[in-house]
Amino acid sequence: MSTDTHIVAFSGSLRTSSYNTAAIKAASHLLPENCSLEILDISNLPLYNQEQDGANAPQEVIALAQKVTNADAILFATPEYNYSVPGVLKNAIDWLSRQQPQPFAGKPAAMMSASMSILGGARAQYHLRQIMIYLDVHFVNKPEVMIAGAHEKFNDKGELTDELTRDFIKQLVDSLLSWSHKLKS
Amino acid sequence: MSTDTHIVAFSGSLRTSSYNTAAIKAASHLLPENCSLEILDISNLPLYNQEQDGANAPQEVIALAQKVTNADAILFATPEYNYSVPGVLKNAIDWLSRQQPQPFAGKPAAMMSASMSILGGARAQYHLRQIMIYLDVHFVNKPEVMIAGAHEKFNDKGELTDELTRDFIKQLVDSLLSWSHKLKS
Amino acid sequence: MSTDTHIVAFSGSLRTSSYNTAAIKAASHLLPENCSLEILDISNLPLYNQEQDGANAPQEVIALAQKVTNADAILFATPEYNYSVPGVLKNAIDWLSRQQPQPFAGKPAAMMSASMSILGGARAQYHLRQIMIYLDVHFVNKPEVMIAGAHEKFNDKGELTDELTRDFIKQLVDSLLSWSHKLKS
Amino acid sequence: MSTDTHIVAFSGSLRTSSYNTAAIKAASHLLPENCSLEILDISNLPLYNQEQDGANAPQEVIALAQKVTNADAILFATPEYNYSVPGVLKNAIDWLSRQQPQPFAGKPAAMMSASMSILGGARAQYHLRQIMIYLDVHFVNKPEVMIAGAHEKFNDKGELTDELTRDFIKQLVDSLLSWSHKLKS
Repeated sequence: MSTDTHIVAFSGSLRTSSYNTAAIKAASHLLPENCSLEILDISNLPLYNQEQDGANAPQEVIALAQKVTNADAILFATPEYNYSVPGVLKNAIDWLSRQQPQPFAGKPAAMMSASMSILGGARAQYHLRQIMIYLDVHFVNKPEVMIAGAHEKFNDKGELTDELTRDFIKQLVDSLLSWSHKLKS
Repeated sequence: MSTDTHIVAFSGSLRTSSYNTAAIKAASHLLPENCSLEILDISNLPLYNQEQDGANAPQEVIALAQKVTNADAILFATPEYNYSVPGVLKNAIDWLSRQQPQPFAGKPAAMMSASMSILGGARAQYHLRQIMIYLDVHFVNKPEVMIAGAHEKFNDKGELTDELTRDFIKQLVDSLLSWSHKLKS
Repeated sequence: MSTDTHIVAFSGSLRTSSYNTAAIKAASHLLPENCSLEILDISNLPLYNQEQDGANAPQEVIALAQKVTNADAILFATPEYNYSVPGVLKNAIDWLSRQQPQPFAGKPAAMMSASMSILGGARAQYHLRQIMIYLDVHFVNKPEVMIAGAHEKFNDKGELTDELTRDFIKQLVDSLLSWSHKLKS
Repeated sequence: MSTDTHIVAFSGSLRTSSYNTAAIKAASHLLPENCSLEILDISNLPLYNQEQDGANAPQEVIALAQKVTNADAILFATPEYNYSVPGVLKNAIDWLSRQQPQPFAGKPAAMMSASMSILGGARAQYHLRQIMIYLDVHFVNKPEVMIAGAHEKFNDKGELTDELTRDFIKQLVDSLLSWSHKLKS
């Protein structure tokens, strides 16, 4: 059903032992054999400046845009900082949104969030959904993976140890793959 | 009524001839004599990394936090990028939010937005309101200054030329000053 | 391409000469021959009470749920009251959401808004998008039809007289039909 | 400090044994002696129709508007239906918003939400905050009382049995009273 789907993933946290980056790694282990996932590095981007739109953008932005354009689907894992997505993630989106052709246009996507708080990043997820409307991204609706109390669900090596969370992430991956397949038709 | 109010202002755009920075400058000219306004420079902050919270933060963050802490009120002027606040502005907020004592706590604030589009930044404003709830900022409700078609309201030197817009900004400044006075009581 | 698509439409305004109802009528005239559209009557529903979920619901709710279930696609036209969707429209959605099987599940949808204000209902649209995530509705992203200054775009008989608005509505209808076709595949 | 504060309260649920109505009753027992609280009945309002604005409104609306106008502060307790506030609550707000003078203008307010789900109504709260900006209501920012798993926190008689929840509600009431006092100054 979901042959040859290539996913690019964004983590909203730059922390070395980020739970969100760890959640993406967990997702990558749950993919079928013929699918692939690459975590994009957004840590080396400068702060966005509109004077550097399009072809004036830093080389890192242009390279990143190419990877998004070539992808079949997008996966976001975002912490919630101050009731929204991190500036770091929004900064990457702002840069990419000004590349031509717009790299996100029409792509299928899915999101998850991991946080130590009880809401698990819910507020960040609805902001991200609104942000990506403009860029014409189509998110799966279900499941909504909000990993609360993340520090109890990953071990010290950043490996996912909670089976229920693994099931949710597996459902999200499957949902994204079948959604991608449908939109490609 | 509004003696000795010191305002610090954030512009969400780093563009040299930013309409939002220009709107803040226009606001600064509309202040009563005994009030002051400083535009904070957020262009030199690195991307936020949770490993550098609190005392581990870059010197620029610590200096910025001090300025916010010392201010009586906050003024935001933000463009709307991709239906939300710029990553640049959110990145500054993310850094500042992790300083102790939290610099924004309990402060009165106001916001405006300037954009070339017809909605004038409305979507960014409601995201910013949600973001600042967590940081315990109290925004004035009225007026909501959304400067649509900004390119027709400022001249080439970045000076505000539209009288109606100037009236709105004056109302916003007055609203912020009397709100600050009330909250201080 | 879009053979035999049956659309049900919700207007968020009960006013006899509602611009939103008028916008739906305009949309119905822009459909291809093999498609049909029915405006659902939500004016006779009582206020929602959770004690009357499922089979205990009023007959009007059960009949409405059947119509939504049988539809291929949904069209919403909503005014903006107090920066969100009208209680009237939300009340209908609340009733319908508690019917089994859930009538909206998996349906393609589109929305427009008409208002006398300059923002044209933007704030209501993003609330409606969030509301329908839970019900697993898939909205088209583009175009976003926000009819500002509606009193100048319809005549006294409620007929759409503005050609630019008609073009936008036509694009929305076409977008919904091709989206429906894709999701059905 | 908070002498003679009269609060009117809205429950977003019409269910006889509503947890939200129960949470308001719990709040009323936590008020100081010189304060009072009345739960407003919004169950008998018709669906809002713009043709009945202002003086044309049903008698129930006019009576309700008078009570809100006379109140010193507002307390909302809302369930979350379909990721937003119930249509029932929004319908009451829509009616009241069209009365002159606008009854909510400038009032201090607080909100809580009770739900059986794990998020405790968070999504409804942020929608309600946006709704009330237009009506110039000033909400307290803290605490945010989101009562998750409500069925385990109230007994069969609708009495609050969870001490931690009682503490949160007490903090919310105290926060509202001191906020009311500050805004009145």
